[in-house]
Amino acid sequence: MSIREIKHLDSVRLSKRGNSVVIIDQTRLPNETVYLDLKDPEDLYEAIHQLRVRGAPAIGIFAGYALYCLALQSTAEDYPAFMEEVRTQAAYLNSSRPTAVNLSWALKRMVAKAEASAGKPKTEILQDLKEECIAIHNEDIAMCKAIAEYGLTLIKDGDGILTHCNAGPLATSRYGTALGPILLGYERGMDFHVFVDETRPLLQGARLTSYELEEAGVDITLICDNMASIVMSKGWVQACFVGCDRVAANGDTANKIGTSGVAILAKYYDIPFYVLGPTSTIDLATPTGADIEIELRDPNEIKEKWYEKPMVLPQTRCYNPAFDVTPHELIDAIVTDRGICRAPYTESLKALFE
Amino acid sequence: MSIREIKHLDSVRLSKRGNSVVIIDQTRLPNETVYLDLKDPEDLYEAIHQLRVRGAPAIGIFAGYALYCLALQSTAEDYPAFMEEVRTQAAYLNSSRPTAVNLSWALKRMVAKAEASAGKPKTEILQDLKEECIAIHNEDIAMCKAIAEYGLTLIKDGDGILTHCNAGPLATSRYGTALGPILLGYERGMDFHVFVDETRPLLQGARLTSYELEEAGVDITLICDNMASIVMSKGWVQACFVGCDRVAANGDTANKIGTSGVAILAKYYDIPFYVLGPTSTIDLATPTGADIEIELRDPNEIKEKWYEKPMVLPQTRCYNPAFDVTPHELIDAIVTDRGICRAPYTESLKALFE
Repeated sequence: MSIREIKHLDSVRLSKRGNSVVIIDQTRLPNETVYLDLKDPEDLYEAIHQLRVRGAPAIGIFAGYALYCLALQSTAEDYPAFMEEVRTQAAYLNSSRPTAVNLSWALKRMVAKAEASAGKPKTEILQDLKEECIAIHNEDIAMCKAIAEYGLTLIKDGDGILTHCNAGPLATSRYGTALGPILLGYERGMDFHVFVDETRPLLQGARLTSYELEEAGVDITLICDNMASIVMSKGWVQACFVGCDRVAANGDTANKIGTSGVAILAKYYDIPFYVLGPTSTIDLATPTGADIEIELRDPNEIKEKWYEKPMVLPQTRCYNPAFDVTPHELIDAIVTDRGICRAPYTESLKALFE
Repeated sequence: MSIREIKHLDSVRLSKRGNSVVIIDQTRLPNETVYLDLKDPEDLYEAIHQLRVRGAPAIGIFAGYALYCLALQSTAEDYPAFMEEVRTQAAYLNSSRPTAVNLSWALKRMVAKAEASAGKPKTEILQDLKEECIAIHNEDIAMCKAIAEYGLTLIKDGDGILTHCNAGPLATSRYGTALGPILLGYERGMDFHVFVDETRPLLQGARLTSYELEEAGVDITLICDNMASIVMSKGWVQACFVGCDRVAANGDTANKIGTSGVAILAKYYDIPFYVLGPTSTIDLATPTGADIEIELRDPNEIKEKWYEKPMVLPQTRCYNPAFDVTPHELIDAIVTDRGICRAPYTESLKALFE
């Protein structure tokens, strides 16, 4: 089925020796592609804390491998002492970024596995843990692949696709979410042209999405966020693909700041707008977008981050929301690992869990 | 009529000694407010060429003063030799930025004045030239004031106003165009809250508009271009004010890249969208926006300008249009120094010239 071989970016993996975790240091992209080989607890902690590994699914995968590598180093002489060590290391890693749900989820799953292996010899417990962290990784790969397969049915060879922020391999595994259909289609010999919004102020589009797609071989054009309108007006865009941070029960979707603007432009220019993400980001307990709290970030991200000199007066007030909410009526479909949902979302999203 | 005294930024003026031109060096804003006092031909040329003075009307005003100051230095012993010098200096200044219409227009006007003064003593000719360049400046101030007065009728005390790019005092004189109603209203005791799009990639909003409004005392919030949608969604914006580079006969308007996106968002959120500019930017010879050629600029403005390190891979392709065209149906009114035009623009714009 695969015609082209693309260079898959595995942002997180177990080392060939099997006792350490290898990551791409995302803080140094795109200027340097540096792989780090980590097994000391402090280094593993620091990699999450300093966002060397970022993107909720990627952090979960990393945490699984990290806890396994730490368990390998255990010198405990009995099972209770071993479990004590594993729980302590899990709590330590979990404190590196306390709000990332996938981090605590993956660590809990690893600890539960070690608990379920009680009574087995240490080598077998370690083998169980190794299988568990590989399973976490493989499940994420499968989920991204499923999203990619569903998303690919929405576009055709030669399409221009606009994307915002980064929902690719670096943040997840293998195919990514919003970039999945593009990479999968490319492997199968299809050619897309991707317009990448640079995504101010943190430039995830310029620094990460451009990098991932260039590395894979996909044809891209980087634009400033305010150029999406002219690009759409010229008829160069046949679909918009974006990721999601949380989807409410009615389909309202929180994603990186600027996403709602892209959706409004797409509606004006009559271009379909698609949200792609795993079922785990759909939160039926949140009725609408109005119930999603928006994180406000440091104004210096706008005023001086990345720059040689500050670009505004020190006293200038900035508003720096990290996300915005795209109203469900602007979304043509929400593409998940369990299928494609369309309006009315209150019914189609609920059906995914039945 | 004026309640508050605002610190007017005169970006270009004749020095107190009357023999040199004083400008704010716009290349060093906002980090340093540096005034340059120029009278040598090479320095005057370089100030335009290096964009130390920028904005078409400001360049015209500068050129008038510059030619006058050069004429003052003339050691010619008769009228023909004097005119030879004036014409040579005018041609030299004009070559600093050959495409700026206001530059050649102001220089031609100064040369014509010197020609009309043939037969007068040198001191009188110089006095005529001094009056002419002051007239060019005063006419621009009056034109901006008229735009400000008309624009002010469209907003009320307490309004939130969103603006894009820079159409303020630095680019023109005194009130500016798009910022005119805000500054004039502020002088009269009205309070507005202005949301300033940073305006990638050249950051004219962050570097210049924020600076001008802060210096005047107006309450502002700087945002990234992709935050306009969330700011509008919250009900914080009652009007959008933007400048214009060229208005076609049907009302389609070319302005800084991203303007059309702001107009589409404003329409979605039901917020009035106003274009402000002098009658001279209305080009009845251009039937529609489709006939306006869009300047494409250096991709490095997106990739590396301002940054400590490049933000994208060297090979990444960028699209960097300097302007976009806002279709007339998204524009609620075009505010000129001769009055406010509304749809159908084909009729209302033509009427301005009758």
